[in-house]
Amino acid sequence: MIKLYHFPLCPFSRRIRLLLSESNLDFELLYEIPWDRRPEFLALNPAGTLPVIIDENDKNISGIYSITEYIEEILSLNKSNFIFGDIYNKSEIRRIMEWFDVKFNAEVTQLILKEMVNKFYINKSDGGGSPNMEIIRIAQENMIYHLDYISYLSESRGWLAGDRISEADFAVAAHLSCLDYLNKVPWDKADSVKNWYARIKSRPSFSNLLKDELSGFITPAHYADLDF
Amino acid sequence: MIKLYHFPLCPFSRRIRLLLSESNLDFELLYEIPWDRRPEFLALNPAGTLPVIIDENDKNISGIYSITEYIEEILSLNKSNFIFGDIYNKSEIRRIMEWFDVKFNAEVTQLILKEMVNKFYINKSDGGGSPNMEIIRIAQENMIYHLDYISYLSESRGWLAGDRISEADFAVAAHLSCLDYLNKVPWDKADSVKNWYARIKSRPSFSNLLKDELSGFITPAHYADLDF
Repeated sequence: MIKLYHFPLCPFSRRIRLLLSESNLDFELLYEIPWDRRPEFLALNPAGTLPVIIDENDKNISGIYSITEYIEEILSLNKSNFIFGDIYNKSEIRRIMEWFDVKFNAEVTQLILKEMVNKFYINKSDGGGSPNMEIIRIAQENMIYHLDYISYLSESRGWLAGDRISEADFAVAAHLSCLDYLNKVPWDKADSVKNWYARIKSRPSFSNLLKDELSGFITPAHYADLDF
Repeated sequence: MIKLYHFPLCPFSRRIRLLLSESNLDFELLYEIPWDRRPEFLALNPAGTLPVIIDENDKNISGIYSITEYIEEILSLNKSNFIFGDIYNKSEIRRIMEWFDVKFNAEVTQLILKEMVNKFYINKSDGGGSPNMEIIRIAQENMIYHLDYISYLSESRGWLAGDRISEADFAVAAHLSCLDYLNKVPWDKADSVKNWYARIKSRPSFSNLLKDELSGFITPAHYADLDF
């Protein structure tokens, strides 16, 4: 069985959890706090980043890019890919993934996670402490423009990259679900995004994410509600 | 012929230039200043990021992730890939690419480029002006640890991800070449890195990068010197 080192509010770990579940690949979750920099974990992935998997041949694959393409290569054996279609369709799926994993991550997800989660766990002497509310406000302001873009995509297509659900949907949903856990998504300002998210949230692959519990954080009532 | 929108000191544009040259794919360079946010360019790639290509079917592919995998799919037709080998070898190549494109980029390349290049081009009223030397100092300090890792890889293998040159080498060299243009690589502290870089720099694919000229910046004498 595949072992997945993850942190509950890591958007990249969440994406791989979705991908493995949607692919019906059995996996076991191993909880890892990346900023603890555990020597045994650094020995697996010297970059110290999540996610990391150990596969059935006991080989470790590190980082969201390697793991995604590794799983896609396995899925291609029975043509059940989530990066699929002709070369242009695949490019469109990866373009949206990169938008959210790089741009949205830098302008929104990482700012909010750092202030609200990392600083909660880290000792004050190492840079932890109360969140900077001004940074959270800026991140939420940045989010509006991205939500507009998800609205545009979800209104013009069945799913974000076309008619079928793809890794682009998993990538965007993984980021939003972390922010929703912290009650930081202004759903009232983004009706079409909410409709798209309600659809992906009701898939069996999502149920595991909705059960996550991180000590010190209480999720909003709508977080696990499928009819939110 | 493929058209490539690039900026001379964008590490991702440089990587695609290397990849296209090494693949013997003809291409034409189109100069783009990403922070100008030209409407015609945003119409091609709403994320506003580089690189972007327009291929021979007049289709545009945006972002380093999409373009890399798009070109690899073309190269796979005659098995001349730069992400190659078994599933684990490919994972190792992509792991190193991600390390440099995400971690090194955030901790080193982007800090230095923003202070030295972006702020030189941008009006003072929009956040331009003199570089913050403290940030450059921190980035250079961060670089040491990454150079140690490149040393380790280059000493234990023929190229960074194994016996053959791969996209991992192009990724790392693209970042270092931007920093070397600005004379910010402490070559005297990293002998093995210097030996590896001298080998990749002497390849014909690199010659075009060594001719880049950015007005307002004078490259150090060793930048284009193959026996530096």
